[in-house]
Amino acid sequence: MLVTLTTDFGTRDGYVAAMKAVMLRVSPLVRFLDVTHEIPAQDVMEAAFVIRQVIPYAPPGTIHLVVVDPTVGTERKAIAATFGVGNNEHTFVGPDNGLLPLIAQDSIHDIVELNRPDLWASHQLSATFHGRDVFGPVAAALAAHSSLSDVGTPLSRVTNMHWPLPRFDEEGTNGMVVHVDRFGNCITNIRSSDLERFGRGRRFKCYAGSAVIRTHALTYGETDAAEPLTLFGSTGHLEIAIHGGNAAELLSVDRGDPVTLVFEPVHSTKPVGIAE
Amino acid sequence: MLVTLTTDFGTRDGYVAAMKAVMLRVSPLVRFLDVTHEIPAQDVMEAAFVIRQVIPYAPPGTIHLVVVDPTVGTERKAIAATFGVGNNEHTFVGPDNGLLPLIAQDSIHDIVELNRPDLWASHQLSATFHGRDVFGPVAAALAAHSSLSDVGTPLSRVTNMHWPLPRFDEEGTNGMVVHVDRFGNCITNIRSSDLERFGRGRRFKCYAGSAVIRTHALTYGETDAAEPLTLFGSTGHLEIAIHGGNAAELLSVDRGDPVTLVFEPVHSTKPVGIAE
Amino acid sequence: MLVTLTTDFGTRDGYVAAMKAVMLRVSPLVRFLDVTHEIPAQDVMEAAFVIRQVIPYAPPGTIHLVVVDPTVGTERKAIAATFGVGNNEHTFVGPDNGLLPLIAQDSIHDIVELNRPDLWASHQLSATFHGRDVFGPVAAALAAHSSLSDVGTPLSRVTNMHWPLPRFDEEGTNGMVVHVDRFGNCITNIRSSDLERFGRGRRFKCYAGSAVIRTHALTYGETDAAEPLTLFGSTGHLEIAIHGGNAAELLSVDRGDPVTLVFEPVHSTKPVGIAE
Repeated sequence: MLVTLTTDFGTRDGYVAAMKAVMLRVSPLVRFLDVTHEIPAQDVMEAAFVIRQVIPYAPPGTIHLVVVDPTVGTERKAIAATFGVGNNEHTFVGPDNGLLPLIAQDSIHDIVELNRPDLWASHQLSATFHGRDVFGPVAAALAAHSSLSDVGTPLSRVTNMHWPLPRFDEEGTNGMVVHVDRFGNCITNIRSSDLERFGRGRRFKCYAGSAVIRTHALTYGETDAAEPLTLFGSTGHLEIAIHGGNAAELLSVDRGDPVTLVFEPVHSTKPVGIAE
Repeated sequence: MLVTLTTDFGTRDGYVAAMKAVMLRVSPLVRFLDVTHEIPAQDVMEAAFVIRQVIPYAPPGTIHLVVVDPTVGTERKAIAATFGVGNNEHTFVGPDNGLLPLIAQDSIHDIVELNRPDLWASHQLSATFHGRDVFGPVAAALAAHSSLSDVGTPLSRVTNMHWPLPRFDEEGTNGMVVHVDRFGNCITNIRSSDLERFGRGRRFKCYAGSAVIRTHALTYGETDAAEPLTLFGSTGHLEIAIHGGNAAELLSVDRGDPVTLVFEPVHSTKPVGIAE
Repeated sequence: MLVTLTTDFGTRDGYVAAMKAVMLRVSPLVRFLDVTHEIPAQDVMEAAFVIRQVIPYAPPGTIHLVVVDPTVGTERKAIAATFGVGNNEHTFVGPDNGLLPLIAQDSIHDIVELNRPDLWASHQLSATFHGRDVFGPVAAALAAHSSLSDVGTPLSRVTNMHWPLPRFDEEGTNGMVVHVDRFGNCITNIRSSDLERFGRGRRFKCYAGSAVIRTHALTYGETDAAEPLTLFGSTGHLEIAIHGGNAAELLSVDRGDPVTLVFEPVHSTKPVGIAE
């Protein structure tokens, strides 16, 4: 059974390997799929953004172990849950830190609180590393075909966290950059589906950082290098990019920065989605 | 079946995991061997250099998925090809960006253009992420024992790119640094076989950055710390190194910089390859 | 059979993948567990610290391939050894650089010198990359159920290296920071067991970098953000941390820096281990 791993543990220490070693003791055939261990320390929302890029492509039954745990050792609960649509059910294991609602939204089926210490790492329960001592062993037990009811007891509600959503009106929308990727592409919280619904094909100008962007393209390579453009990226969100360049650096845009779209007057005839 | 992965996707985003997730849906038993995901963005030649360090050691039949794709979404072709010598046949999957000739040179057997969208990621074909949507699924199909003819149609020529080769004459050669490794070793495009053929055992001085290097050694540890030396590294190329130090930093040498070898007059008796 | 990998090879070059490729030729079913490849170049003690975080959690029979090899190509020996307590026997493979005693201490069972070149990478033995050419193939042979006596001949002594140990007296102890982790937690060489033995429950002040720390907590989350604290971390050592902050940066503490504990007079009644 496949377990994806998303953490803020970094790759210089032995933390990830210790967690995996514990899991291999519980379930020698578990298969790992590392998403990233470079989530900025304790940044729950960034972890949610990154694992959401992977979930739609993971096989049904995949277990997602996501450990970004700013309040480890306090009263925050440890949870597991099933979520998904139709036959495509997945399982989440991690702290109750608000991430589950961000990734599962309206599709949560069952939630349990992890309260079976006999399943946890046998040596000792450290106060500071529940990835190794609690979440890893439980994810491995689930990978070895334990059910949710084997690892905890039902829980009716979890900590909630919400994606910041852009506000649309007749003139445009105010969104924000929610992720800057390795290439410097600035991914916004403006979804293609919303833009199509509210913009109804109107062209727009995009204000971000030091730039006013008038070109909306289908691919990075469609324009001359050095010209900033917007496009719908592989996540289905509006991105700001520069072909062959790092848009975040060149436009001085960072995660959290505002992105404003202003629709052109309706007498414009070119539809959204066609580059100039 | 083994699939190596070499990309410029970085390790902070979910891109690599999304590509692997798609592959696991196609071929649940595929085995991954990550080469690196830290190729500088869109640097095809660096990708070729790094995967060439691995190919000679990979088992026959290995599939090499190399996705550095500066022109994704344009008319550039998607290809797969077989190459290798004797029983040691390997398969390449990736964009037609010049990399295949760099790694396979005269040993290419068959090339196909990938044009079977039914094999690609079923959700939607994004314009910007063909690693996930095209190359990954095809590599996984090949790992599950599809043949080249199952995934595309024959192609007779591909985009060519050539390694910069050093020019030798009676007095020496002008080469360049083609890679700086993690230790600061500066790997040149001067091969041991060429140096032996043209130098016929003559000693040489090596000019690189701020240094004139007179010591040619067999191993890093052969000289005193802090003294720069040349040696034939694990890739069979001439390297510039400093035992216990970072040669690139200490000598101000970077990738792309010239490296000049000047042969000593022939009355010198010590052969190349023996340290002073 | 499981092989952990700990090296200073970095993740930008093809070195790790070349080593794994060789191992897969020897033993196609070997399972890899990457610990880290980001050990600072040639830093044997840091490698020992990191792999020690993993060994207690690895399944019995695990092979630990640890290649940090500052004197590759010189007369330093290549070794393999078994170590461990009771049924929990592990195997070490790597250079004789002092690391084995650091991780196995008094529990070494058998040591062999690797001197069977027929088991090594068949192409050629490079002078500079014994991870790929010697240690990898031997670890893979052991993973495929070769015994120590199949890969070398008995060796009675190895290079010794010792952990710097803190000195305790009636007034306190002088320790040092032996590792700074990704979160900026400063892990010292002061073990909880020693502190309990010598401190006998007395409270203490901790001097480190620019800080005097009076709070000893059970978890990171126990105090207000921005207040430095000490706690026993997941490795069983005293750590200096700041909840939600990077202690190393904020207190200007680095690896190797002194950490001084001064016990409070005995009329203090609160035991060690309870936060204020």
